[in-house]
Amino acid sequence: MKKSNSPTMKDVAREAGVALGTVSKVINGIPVGESYRLHVEAAIEKLGYCVNSYARGLKTNRTNCVALLMPSLYHPFFATLTDELTACLMRHGYRSMLMITNYDPEAEKKCLILGHENKVDGVIALTYSPDLKPDDSTAMVTIDRHCGDSIPCVSSDNYRGGEIAAEKLAELGCRRLLFMAVASDIPGEVDKRGGGFEAACRRLHIAYEQIILHDRDTEAPFYDFLLRHIREGVPDFDGIFCNTDRLACRMRDFLLRQGIRIPEDIQLIGYDGITDYATGRYTCSTIVQPIAQIAETAVSLLLDTTGLAVPTNICLPVHYAPGGTTRE
Amino acid sequence: MKKSNSPTMKDVAREAGVALGTVSKVINGIPVGESYRLHVEAAIEKLGYCVNSYARGLKTNRTNCVALLMPSLYHPFFATLTDELTACLMRHGYRSMLMITNYDPEAEKKCLILGHENKVDGVIALTYSPDLKPDDSTAMVTIDRHCGDSIPCVSSDNYRGGEIAAEKLAELGCRRLLFMAVASDIPGEVDKRGGGFEAACRRLHIAYEQIILHDRDTEAPFYDFLLRHIREGVPDFDGIFCNTDRLACRMRDFLLRQGIRIPEDIQLIGYDGITDYATGRYTCSTIVQPIAQIAETAVSLLLDTTGLAVPTNICLPVHYAPGGTTRE
Repeated sequence: MKKSNSPTMKDVAREAGVALGTVSKVINGIPVGESYRLHVEAAIEKLGYCVNSYARGLKTNRTNCVALLMPSLYHPFFATLTDELTACLMRHGYRSMLMITNYDPEAEKKCLILGHENKVDGVIALTYSPDLKPDDSTAMVTIDRHCGDSIPCVSSDNYRGGEIAAEKLAELGCRRLLFMAVASDIPGEVDKRGGGFEAACRRLHIAYEQIILHDRDTEAPFYDFLLRHIREGVPDFDGIFCNTDRLACRMRDFLLRQGIRIPEDIQLIGYDGITDYATGRYTCSTIVQPIAQIAETAVSLLLDTTGLAVPTNICLPVHYAPGGTTRE
Repeated sequence: MKKSNSPTMKDVAREAGVALGTVSKVINGIPVGESYRLHVEAAIEKLGYCVNSYARGLKTNRTNCVALLMPSLYHPFFATLTDELTACLMRHGYRSMLMITNYDPEAEKKCLILGHENKVDGVIALTYSPDLKPDDSTAMVTIDRHCGDSIPCVSSDNYRGGEIAAEKLAELGCRRLLFMAVASDIPGEVDKRGGGFEAACRRLHIAYEQIILHDRDTEAPFYDFLLRHIREGVPDFDGIFCNTDRLACRMRDFLLRQGIRIPEDIQLIGYDGITDYATGRYTCSTIVQPIAQIAETAVSLLLDTTGLAVPTNICLPVHYAPGGTTRE
């Protein structure tokens, strides 16, 4: 992993017959006389001079590099979000320094320090540490979880998504609803899915129950709960909203094994909009997160191109999509 | 995105009462007298001095940064591979600069230039350009596709995987086999899956046919072929090896719609070892790629910690896993 002796800016200046400062101006896009610019560009071409972004990073205090903190790429939501964030940063001329944190708050803190050491211009984080703070000089945007009022958080409109799920189940004929959720200790935008669902149920005068488990627990209480609510093959509920597609798919599989028909006996809606990689189809009926727009908004806020006062939260619109677990 | 006036090495030297060179040695792990080291460390702690990796990159010509070129993170194989590569690089003290190339050879070339501008220590690429070449000073390792004999390529043992698929289908009672593949113009390790399958079929004296389509074509010829080979509900084949899990899942869905029972009438094996994100189960019976070992091997080769002569190709062992499309 040796480095070659690449031509320097001095070599370019000598070749072009101009001052070093002129080369610097051309490289940094500062106007110079047309003939100077052409000489410098010809010299760059001839020598194969390559901009040294590290030296530029030191000089201008900008590195055009953004750290992305992600828990894992094994979950398709995180993977596609990372894809869209990186592609969007590249379109803006930024590079993406990916860091995998494995849902570990200590690893997240170490990654922030590493980002600071590497003079990243900013951080986009999907974190599990509510107290994660970059140093004062590093811009940060979070996704789905808040890290204080000075750090904007971008998410899908989780509350509205919960409302849409209840409204859709009601429209499809459901009269006894259940909300099932896996929640974490760390408060986040995701928690609002249940609030929106409940509010819509009340407004629509539809009976509902809920069962919420901690994400470190097993799913056994979900299964016990469902079994208690199936009497002689007839379930107490005719519609279920799960706070993730993953949970909806798992509950569908469990209910099918109990002889419950989906969607005839129970209709199920999840949240996320995960598609099957082989068929491209939604894995269940779902509230779809606008992943590309979440990525674009997070990047725009970080690069401060929105002209907005720094918001604490930006929620982007979601929509319902059928995926086989509802009657439409 | 302003930068604060962070303390410099000079500030640390002044605080510790030592020469600048001594601070530099401590930071770079070069031995100095114990009391000097303790003074420098105390000064670093007190001032909150943070190593400037950019300055270090210029000085030592190492940046501890590796560019990862990936076509997309929408496919779970690329996403989990990127996860494992990044986690492995981080364990070795390296950072991962992720670049998404969208299967576009021109974008891949631009990404290589960008990596060079940023003085990356190396490149790990899953590319669609057989002529992709880093500059002479940048180490490179590819995955699945070759870019010349001087650049090691890491892959699963695709040939052996094809053999295992044929052997397993034979063991499970199949006597008339079919190989279905989607192939690209760009030659790669993946092409060997068919070769291994054929060789094993011949060795086992099992009849086989094959149909191979270009990845830019539609799947219609696959469907036409299968329909021609189902007469009065009885298929000509009792076992199919598809060169990816994605293809196997799509063919399973098509055959089920034709009233063919899977695995009773036809057994199907794919390749990749993709698991369903919700259940963790394999999406079909499959030849499993050792993704974590591929990542570790690629990183070890790039960082040159293997002690091996530079190999042109390293194939890692695969295994068969049942996933519902075979009788076991």
